[in-house]
Amino acid sequence: MNAVAELSPEEIHEAVFTMGRQARTAAHALAILSTRQKNAILHSMAAELREQSAEILKENTKDLAAGEANGLSGAMLDRLRLDEARLETVAGGVEQVAGLADPVGEILDERTRPNGIRIQQIRVPIGVIGIIYESRPNVTSDAAVLCLKSGNATILRGGSEAIHSNRAMAAALQEGGEKEGLPPHSIQLIPFTDRESVKEMASMDRYLDLIIPRGGKGLIETVVSLARMPVIKHYDGICHVFVDEAADQVMAGEITVDAKTQKPSVCNALETLLVHEAVAGEFLPTVAKRLAARQVELRGCPKTRAILGDQVVAANEEDWGTEYLDYILAIKVVSSGAEAIAHINQYGSQHTDCIVTKDGATAERFLREVDSACVFHNVSTRFSDGEEFGFGAEIGISTDKLHARGPMALRELTSYQYRVRGAGQVKDPLS
Amino acid sequence: MNAVAELSPEEIHEAVFTMGRQARTAAHALAILSTRQKNAILHSMAAELREQSAEILKENTKDLAAGEANGLSGAMLDRLRLDEARLETVAGGVEQVAGLADPVGEILDERTRPNGIRIQQIRVPIGVIGIIYESRPNVTSDAAVLCLKSGNATILRGGSEAIHSNRAMAAALQEGGEKEGLPPHSIQLIPFTDRESVKEMASMDRYLDLIIPRGGKGLIETVVSLARMPVIKHYDGICHVFVDEAADQVMAGEITVDAKTQKPSVCNALETLLVHEAVAGEFLPTVAKRLAARQVELRGCPKTRAILGDQVVAANEEDWGTEYLDYILAIKVVSSGAEAIAHINQYGSQHTDCIVTKDGATAERFLREVDSACVFHNVSTRFSDGEEFGFGAEIGISTDKLHARGPMALRELTSYQYRVRGAGQVKDPLS
Repeated sequence: MNAVAELSPEEIHEAVFTMGRQARTAAHALAILSTRQKNAILHSMAAELREQSAEILKENTKDLAAGEANGLSGAMLDRLRLDEARLETVAGGVEQVAGLADPVGEILDERTRPNGIRIQQIRVPIGVIGIIYESRPNVTSDAAVLCLKSGNATILRGGSEAIHSNRAMAAALQEGGEKEGLPPHSIQLIPFTDRESVKEMASMDRYLDLIIPRGGKGLIETVVSLARMPVIKHYDGICHVFVDEAADQVMAGEITVDAKTQKPSVCNALETLLVHEAVAGEFLPTVAKRLAARQVELRGCPKTRAILGDQVVAANEEDWGTEYLDYILAIKVVSSGAEAIAHINQYGSQHTDCIVTKDGATAERFLREVDSACVFHNVSTRFSDGEEFGFGAEIGISTDKLHARGPMALRELTSYQYRVRGAGQVKDPLS
Repeated sequence: MNAVAELSPEEIHEAVFTMGRQARTAAHALAILSTRQKNAILHSMAAELREQSAEILKENTKDLAAGEANGLSGAMLDRLRLDEARLETVAGGVEQVAGLADPVGEILDERTRPNGIRIQQIRVPIGVIGIIYESRPNVTSDAAVLCLKSGNATILRGGSEAIHSNRAMAAALQEGGEKEGLPPHSIQLIPFTDRESVKEMASMDRYLDLIIPRGGKGLIETVVSLARMPVIKHYDGICHVFVDEAADQVMAGEITVDAKTQKPSVCNALETLLVHEAVAGEFLPTVAKRLAARQVELRGCPKTRAILGDQVVAANEEDWGTEYLDYILAIKVVSSGAEAIAHINQYGSQHTDCIVTKDGATAERFLREVDSACVFHNVSTRFSDGEEFGFGAEIGISTDKLHARGPMALRELTSYQYRVRGAGQVKDPLS
C-alpha cells in the first residue's frame, strides 16, 4: 500500500479492522510464549535492524526530503533523522529490553479460602495495544519491543512525516522476530497516515484493549474524545518546585536550575517555581541571576516583580497552566505551604511536583496532599523517569490515574487474571 | 430541585458541573482522612439510615406508586421495594464496610536507588468516581460507602424509577456522615434523571476520574461512546463450563447444575456448556435429565441434538453469544480442549470460565489460554465474586482488562502515587 494513495473511508475501515483481527489472533499466541522465546525474538529483531540498516536509512532519506520540501524546522528534521549511530542505539535498546525481567506470570496474590478453593492472581499481557505517535521514528521500535516483551501485540500508527522510516523499521522488527517464531501480525504498522485511521482505531474496542497516544494536544484530544477503549495519556508535564520557608536555599537553587535547564524540552522539566514569601526576598535574586546566565526568561507574579524588578515579564493566568518546554520559567510567591499545594492541585498537570524544605512535617504534608503521580522532596523533577526509578526502559509517563500512573514500564503493560483451582466446590451442594 | 421539572440543557450542564467542582474539593479533603475518621463516618451513616428509615420508606412508596402506574413488572417492582428488613440489610452493609481494612496508605513498592533517592509507591484514592446505575436503590448506599472507605468522592446517577428512594438514601448518608466530619459534597446524587445528565458526566473529565456504569447494554453503550475519562464496565457474563474427556462426570454434573440453576439471574451463572465429544454420549443424557427436572431449556449444536434428540432446541450462532440470565442453557460438543478454548475466546465475555477435568496438564493449558478475568478448574462459576474471593464487599465484577479485572473491591477503587525523598539530588551537579 502506498503512503500517499487516496483511500476511501471504507478501504481504511476494512484495512484497520483486518489488522485488528490479525492482532487479536497474534495476541493469543504471544501470551503463551516463554521468556526464553521472547528474548530470542528480541535478539533476532536487533540483528535484523542492523542487517536492514541500509534499507532503513534509504527510506529515512525519503522522509527527510519530504520534510524539507514541506518546510519542517531544523529541530524537527533532526528529530526525524536516522544515521548508523542512531540506528545502533535503537538496536541496542531492543537488546536491553531482552535483558529486563519478564513481568508475565508473576504471582501477585495467592490465597486459599475456607472452602478449599485456591485463588491465584497472576500477571498476564493486556492483549493488543495501539500506539499513536508523532515524529521520531525510534518510537516505532521502542514501543513495539516493550509491548512484545510484556506479551502484547501492537498496532502502531506513526506520524505522516516519518512514514517511510516507520514502515521500514516495523518490517525489519517483524521479519527479524519471525525468524525466531514471532507470531505473524504481532507488530503491525498502519501503512497510511490518513486521520481517518486514528478514528478507526479508536472505534475498534473489540480488537484493541488499550490506546496510548504520544504527541501533541490535538492528537490526544482526538483520541480521548473518540476512543471506546481505555486510553492512557502521556500528557503535559506542568511541573512545580516549591521552595519552602525552611528550605536549604543552596539546595533549592541547585534543584531549580537543574529542573529548568538541564533539558527543558522534556515533560519532567520545571515550569513553575513557587517560593514562600518569607524567603522570596533572599532566594529570588540569587536564583534569578543563575537562571539569567542560562538565558531563562522569567515571568512573575506581582510580588516576584516587586523583588526582581521590571525585567521580569508579568505572568498572566495562562502562564500557570502552560507547559513551556523551553527556557521560560513562571514564578509565584505564595504565603504558605497550603497555598503552594492548592496552586499545584489547581494549575498542575498531576505529573511531578517537588518541595524543597528541611522541615519534615511540611514535606510530608506536601507529599500527601499534592495530587500528582510523582511528589518529590528535595530531588530534581528530572528524576521522574522509569529508568531513574529502576524500572528499566519506559514507554512514557502516564498523567492518568487509572491502571498506570507516572513512569510506565513493562509491569504497567500487563493486566492480571484470577486462576482458581478446586475439588468440585459448588454453591449449593444439595442441588 | 424537582425530579420531574423540565430543565434546559444549560441548567443540567451547570448543575452537573457544579457537583463535579464540589466533588473535586471534597475528594482532596477525603484523601487525607484517617481510617478511624472514615469508620466513625460510616457508623454514623448507618445510624442515620436507621434514624431516617420512615422518611426513606415514605419516599420509596412514591417510586412504587409511579412504577405501578408506569406498568413495571412484578419482578421490577420487587427490586425497587424497600422495607424495614431490607433497609436494615443496607445499614448493616455500611457497618460491614467500616470493618474492612483501609486500602489507602498501603506501601506497594519501596526502593532506594544508587544515587540515594528513596522511592515509595503508595496506594491513594482515585479521586471522584461517577456511578451510573439502574433500578435497585440499595446500590446508592453500597456504591457510596465502598467509594468513601477507599477515600473517594462519588457522584451517583441512579435510574428514574428509584429517584425518590435514591435521593432520600443519599441525603441520609451525607447527613449522617457530616455528623462525624464527612466533607460536604462527598456523596452527591444527581437529583434529576434526564438522559442529558449522563452525557454531562461523561464529558466532565476535569472533575470525574472514573465512571462505573452498572446496568443494561444501552446504558453501558452510551457511557462507553461518550466518556472522556476511564470507564470500568460491569458487562455481560457469558460463562462457560467445559467438561473435558478426563472429567469426573459426577463432579461435572454437580458443577453444571449448580452454575446454571443455583441463581440464574446473575452474571457468574453458566450460559454455555461445552462437552468433549469423547464423553458427550455418556455425560449429556445424565445432566440433561437433572437440568430438565429444574425446568432448564436446552439449546444444542447438531451433535448435542443427535445425542439428546429433538426435544433440544437447535442453537444458532446468536445463542453462543447470549447471556440468558434465565433457565436456558446452550450446549456444544467439541472435539478437543483447543476447540473449547477457541470457542470461549471467540464467543465469551471474558468473565468466568471453568474446566472440569482430572488431567492437570489439560487444566493448566485451559487456565493459561482462556483470556478471561477468572478461569476456574473444578469449581462452580458461581464462586466468581468478591466476597467468595475474600475481598469483602465488591462494587461489581469488571469485564475490562485495565486497572480492575474480575471482582472489584476496595483495593480496585484506589490508584497510587510515587513519593520520592532525597537530599538535593540533581541530574547535572555541575549546573
